[in-house]
Amino acid sequence: MTGHVLPTHYGVTLPAWVLDEVGATRAGTDVERMALCCRLARRNVREGTGGPFAALVVDEASGRLVAAGVNLVLSSGLSSSHAEVVALGLAQTALGRWDLGANGARHTLYVNWRPCVQCYGAVLWSGVTRLVIAGDGPELEALTGFDEGPMPGDWSAEFATRGIRVESGVLRDEALAVFREYGALVEAGAVTVYNARGAGPVRRG
Amino acid sequence: MTGHVLPTHYGVTLPAWVLDEVGATRAGTDVERMALCCRLARRNVREGTGGPFAALVVDEASGRLVAAGVNLVLSSGLSSSHAEVVALGLAQTALGRWDLGANGARHTLYVNWRPCVQCYGAVLWSGVTRLVIAGDGPELEALTGFDEGPMPGDWSAEFATRGIRVESGVLRDEALAVFREYGALVEAGAVTVYNARGAGPVRRG
Repeated sequence: MTGHVLPTHYGVTLPAWVLDEVGATRAGTDVERMALCCRLARRNVREGTGGPFAALVVDEASGRLVAAGVNLVLSSGLSSSHAEVVALGLAQTALGRWDLGANGARHTLYVNWRPCVQCYGAVLWSGVTRLVIAGDGPELEALTGFDEGPMPGDWSAEFATRGIRVESGVLRDEALAVFREYGALVEAGAVTVYNARGAGPVRRG
Repeated sequence: MTGHVLPTHYGVTLPAWVLDEVGATRAGTDVERMALCCRLARRNVREGTGGPFAALVVDEASGRLVAAGVNLVLSSGLSSSHAEVVALGLAQTALGRWDLGANGARHTLYVNWRPCVQCYGAVLWSGVTRLVIAGDGPELEALTGFDEGPMPGDWSAEFATRGIRVESGVLRDEALAVFREYGALVEAGAVTVYNARGAGPVRRG
C-alpha cells in the first residue's frame, strides 16, 4: 500500500526548566503539591511549551514524587500530550509498568483542574487510585477558550466505581488566577489555543 | 523536593512487523482499510505487543496512508498507547503538527471499533474530520473483558458538532471475529487484559 516511509516513533521530552522548578519547590502536602502544579502551569505558558496545565504523580506510601508533567502539545507537536498523559507516561516509564496500581501500589495524580474527556479516560486506564484537583466547574472553559469535550454525566462516581477517589477544591482560587491570566493572553492574541477547531469564546471571569 | 532523578522522556516505537503487514496489503477503499485494521489487530495479539486494536490515518485528498498504529500498551509500558493515540501521534509527528485539520487538510481515522473514552477525547483534540469504525455496540466489552469507560451519552452527535463525521458498521462481523478470538485467549489465561483493575467478565458471543 505504501510507496513512502511510514513513521515508526513518537516521543515526549520534558523541558529542562520543569525539573528546575520542581527542585526549588517544597511539596510535601496536597496544598503544596497543587501550588507546584499552578507554578508549573503558569511557567509553561510563559515558556511557550503548552497550555496552562501541570500534573504530578506521587507515591502515597512514601510521599515520593514519581513524575511531574506539563501540557506539551505545542512543543511536542502531539495533541495527546496533555499534562496528565505526560505525567502518567513519565511515571509508567520510570516504574517500568503500565499499571500504577500493580502489586497494591497506590499513586495520587494532582492536576490543576478536572481532566478533559481524553485525560479522564487516561486516568481510568492508568492505575492511579486518587485524583486531587483544584476544581471541576465550567470556569476553565469559560476563562481559557479550551473545549474540554463532553464528559460523562456522573464522571466522579464512575471514577469511584473503578477505585479512584476524587478530591476537588484544593487551591481553587490560585488555579483560576492562572486560567484568568491565560485568558487575557488569548484575548490579546499572544498564545495559541490548541483546540483542533480553534478557541471557543473567552468569557472573562 | 527531589533527592532522586525524575523521568524526562517517554516514547512509543512501532514494532517492525506492522510495516511488513501494511506493505503487503492493498488498502485503497474503506473496506480494504478496515480489513487491514483487523489484520493488524489480530497479529498484534499474536505478537504479544498489545490488545486487539489497530488504527490508520489516511489523507482524504490523496488517499495516502499517513500512519498505521496498533495498541502498544504491553510493549511500550504506557497505558495511553492505544491504537488511536499511537496512529494519531505517529501522523502528527510525520506531518510536524498537532492539528491534522490545519490549513484545510482532511484526515480520516480508521479503527476496528468505537474508541474508548480516552481515545474518544484523543480524536476530538486531533483535528481528524472523519472516523470510520467497524461497530459501536457493547459487544467489544462483552467479548474481550475490556472496560472502555463511561462514554458521553450522545458521543456521535458531539463528534458531529465538532466537525467529525462518523461512519460505523464497516466489516463489523470481521471485527467481532477478532474480539471473539481474543476473548477465547482471555478465558484460557493466554493474554493480559490491561484494565488497571483487571478484566471484567468475558461473555462469549
